[in-house]
Amino acid sequence: MTFSAADHAAMARALALAEQGLDTTTPNPRVGCVLVRDGVIVGEGWHQRAGEPHAEIHALRMAGEAARGATAYVTLEPCSHFGRTPPCADALVDAGVARVVAAMEDPNPLVAGRGLARLRATSIIAESGLMEAQARDLNIGFVSRMTRGRPWVRLKAASTLDGKTALENGVSQWITGEAARRDGHRWRARACAVLTGIGTVREDNPQLTVRAVPCERQPLRILVDARLAIPSTARLLAGPPILIATAGGNPAREAELRAAGHEVLPLPNAAGKVDLPQLFRALGERGLNEIHVEAGFKLNGSLLREGCVDELLLYLAPLLVGDAAQGLFNLAPLSALDQALRLDIRDLRQLGDDFRLLARPRQA
Amino acid sequence: MTFSAADHAAMARALALAEQGLDTTTPNPRVGCVLVRDGVIVGEGWHQRAGEPHAEIHALRMAGEAARGATAYVTLEPCSHFGRTPPCADALVDAGVARVVAAMEDPNPLVAGRGLARLRATSIIAESGLMEAQARDLNIGFVSRMTRGRPWVRLKAASTLDGKTALENGVSQWITGEAARRDGHRWRARACAVLTGIGTVREDNPQLTVRAVPCERQPLRILVDARLAIPSTARLLAGPPILIATAGGNPAREAELRAAGHEVLPLPNAAGKVDLPQLFRALGERGLNEIHVEAGFKLNGSLLREGCVDELLLYLAPLLVGDAAQGLFNLAPLSALDQALRLDIRDLRQLGDDFRLLARPRQA
Repeated sequence: MTFSAADHAAMARALALAEQGLDTTTPNPRVGCVLVRDGVIVGEGWHQRAGEPHAEIHALRMAGEAARGATAYVTLEPCSHFGRTPPCADALVDAGVARVVAAMEDPNPLVAGRGLARLRATSIIAESGLMEAQARDLNIGFVSRMTRGRPWVRLKAASTLDGKTALENGVSQWITGEAARRDGHRWRARACAVLTGIGTVREDNPQLTVRAVPCERQPLRILVDARLAIPSTARLLAGPPILIATAGGNPAREAELRAAGHEVLPLPNAAGKVDLPQLFRALGERGLNEIHVEAGFKLNGSLLREGCVDELLLYLAPLLVGDAAQGLFNLAPLSALDQALRLDIRDLRQLGDDFRLLARPRQA
Repeated sequence: MTFSAADHAAMARALALAEQGLDTTTPNPRVGCVLVRDGVIVGEGWHQRAGEPHAEIHALRMAGEAARGATAYVTLEPCSHFGRTPPCADALVDAGVARVVAAMEDPNPLVAGRGLARLRATSIIAESGLMEAQARDLNIGFVSRMTRGRPWVRLKAASTLDGKTALENGVSQWITGEAARRDGHRWRARACAVLTGIGTVREDNPQLTVRAVPCERQPLRILVDARLAIPSTARLLAGPPILIATAGGNPAREAELRAAGHEVLPLPNAAGKVDLPQLFRALGERGLNEIHVEAGFKLNGSLLREGCVDELLLYLAPLLVGDAAQGLFNLAPLSALDQALRLDIRDLRQLGDDFRLLARPRQA
C-alpha cells in the first residue's frame, strides 16, 4: 500500500488539527479529521474535549452533503463502539464517505482494527499507516496507557552545563531563562498531571500550575510524600484538591488532608517508601495519559532507577557553577560505563540563551 | 562602502581557500586569496606553511598576466614588510592589480592599515571589512596573540548529560562516541599546542597526539606539572620533546627531563603553583596562536577561575551516571546565581549519538 503526496498533505493537515486538542482531550486521544473530495477540503475538525463530538463528526457536519464520495483522513482509527458518543465508523458510512485513511489503528489491543473492519464490511476502502510515527508521538501517553497500562512519564529538569540544578545553598531560581520557563509550562499544559516530591515542596514550594502560557484545563497535581510531611501552608495545597501518594502510617495527617478535600493514596512498598511503579499503574487506571514530573535530586533518581521515566525533558543553561552545587540525579555509583543509563536524543534546540534536549532512556 | 554579491562570493572562496591551511600555517595566520577579472577567477591560492609564499603570491603566479586589472580578494590585509618573504603589497602593485579587498586589517596594532595604505599610495583601490567576522574567527588565535599578547585558549571536555567526566573509579574511556572523538582530534590538529595537567597524565596517561584524523604537523604538547611529578614512563614523554610548565623547586628532576630533550619552564606563582596567566603570555611570545586544553577537574577549574579560557568545546554524551561520579570543573562554591560563570553558546550540533557545544565565557 502506498500513499500519494495528496494523501500526505491531507493527513499532515489532520495531524495539525489534532494538535489543537493537545491540552484538552484528556483522557481521550487528540484526533483530527479532514474530508477531501475532488482535491478540495470539504470538511475538517478535531476532538476538543471528552464527551464532546469526535473529530470525524465535526468534519462531517462541516461537509454536509459534500462528504458523499469524499476521502476521510483521520489521525486515529475511527471508533466502532458506543462510548459517550455513537461510533464514528457508522457516521462515516452513513455520510457516504468512499475511502477512509487512518494514521494508526486504535492502540487498545482489544479494539485495534475493528473500526476499520466495520468500514471494510461496507463498500468503503479503509487503509491505515499514513504518517503513523507522527500520530503515535502525538498520542504517546494514550498509546502508553492502552498498550502498557500506565501513562507516559516525562521528567523535566533544568540544569547548568556542569549538571547542577541548584547552588549548594539551595538557590535554583532561575537557572534557565524566560523562554525555557515558558516552554516548560507549555509541556505542563499538555500533561494530564504534574507530579512532584516532598523535597521540591520543601525547597521551592511550587504551585505546579500552568501560568506562563494560556491554559483552559489545569492538570491534576500529584505529590509523592511517603510520610505526609507536607505543611498545610504549602502552596501546592492551595487551589484545587491534589492527589498525594504516601507510604501510609500517618492516619491522622491522612484524615486532615482528606478533610481539606485532597485525595490520599497509600501505596507503600517493602522499603516503606511509595511504590512508584504501582503509583503509575494506578494513574493509568484513572485515565491519565501523560505525566509531567518536576521533582528534585532524590525523587528524580528514584524514578530513573525504578524504570519509571519514559522521556527526559532537559533544559541546559549556559552556566558553570562548580561541583559543590546540587547534582541532577541520585543514581547508584557505577563501576563501568556500560552500566550507565543511556539515552536516545530525540530533539535538541536552542531556546533563548538556553537549550533543550528531549531524550528517551534506551530500553535494555 | 558597500560590497556586491560578486564581492561576497569571491571572498567566501578566499576564506574557504584559507581554511586549507588550518593545520599548517602556524605561527602565521591562515590566509586565502582570489584574483577576479571580468567576473572570472584568474588566480587563487592559500598560505600553506611559514617560510613559504603567502596566499597572494600563489594567486598571482597562477594568474600571470591575467592579474593586470583584476580585483584581489584577500582574507587578511596584505603585508607591507619584509619578513621571511618580500611584502605582498608590492607584489600586487607590480602585477598591476586594480583593486584589493581585504576581509580584515592586520590585527597587529603596530602594522594595521599599512599594507592597505601602501596600496592606496598607488592607483589601486584598497578596501577592507568584507566578511570580517568570518575572517577574524578563522584566525582567532592569531588575532588574540596580536591584540592581547596571548593565545586563544580552547578547553575541550567530554561529559555525561549529568555533568560527569569519569566514574567514581576513574573510568572515563569512552564517555563519548567515535564521531565526537574524531571531531576532538580535528580540533587538536588545528591547534598550535595541546595542553594537559599532571592529573590527566596520572588518570589517563594520554599521548595527546593527533591520530584520528590526517595530520601533517603534530601540535606541541604542553604539560602543567607544578612538582614535576610526571613519571618517565608516561606516554606523553615518548615521541617529540614536550614543554613542561612547573613551579620549580625540583632541580634534579628538571635536569633529568631537560636531558631527555624536554623543555622545562619554571613559572611559580605566590601560591607555589604554576602561574597560568604568565604561562599563556609566555606561549604567546613563542608564536603560539591556539591552545587546545584537554585536562581534568582541577586544572580545568583553575583555568576557568583564573580567566584563562576563551572558549569551551564541550562534548555531551547522552548518558546518566549519577552524582558519585567525577564532576567537570573545580570551581569555588557560589552563594548566588549571578556569580555563575555565564557562557555564550556559539554553536550546538549533534555528532553521532553525542552532541557538541561551542561556547565562550561571557566577559564580565
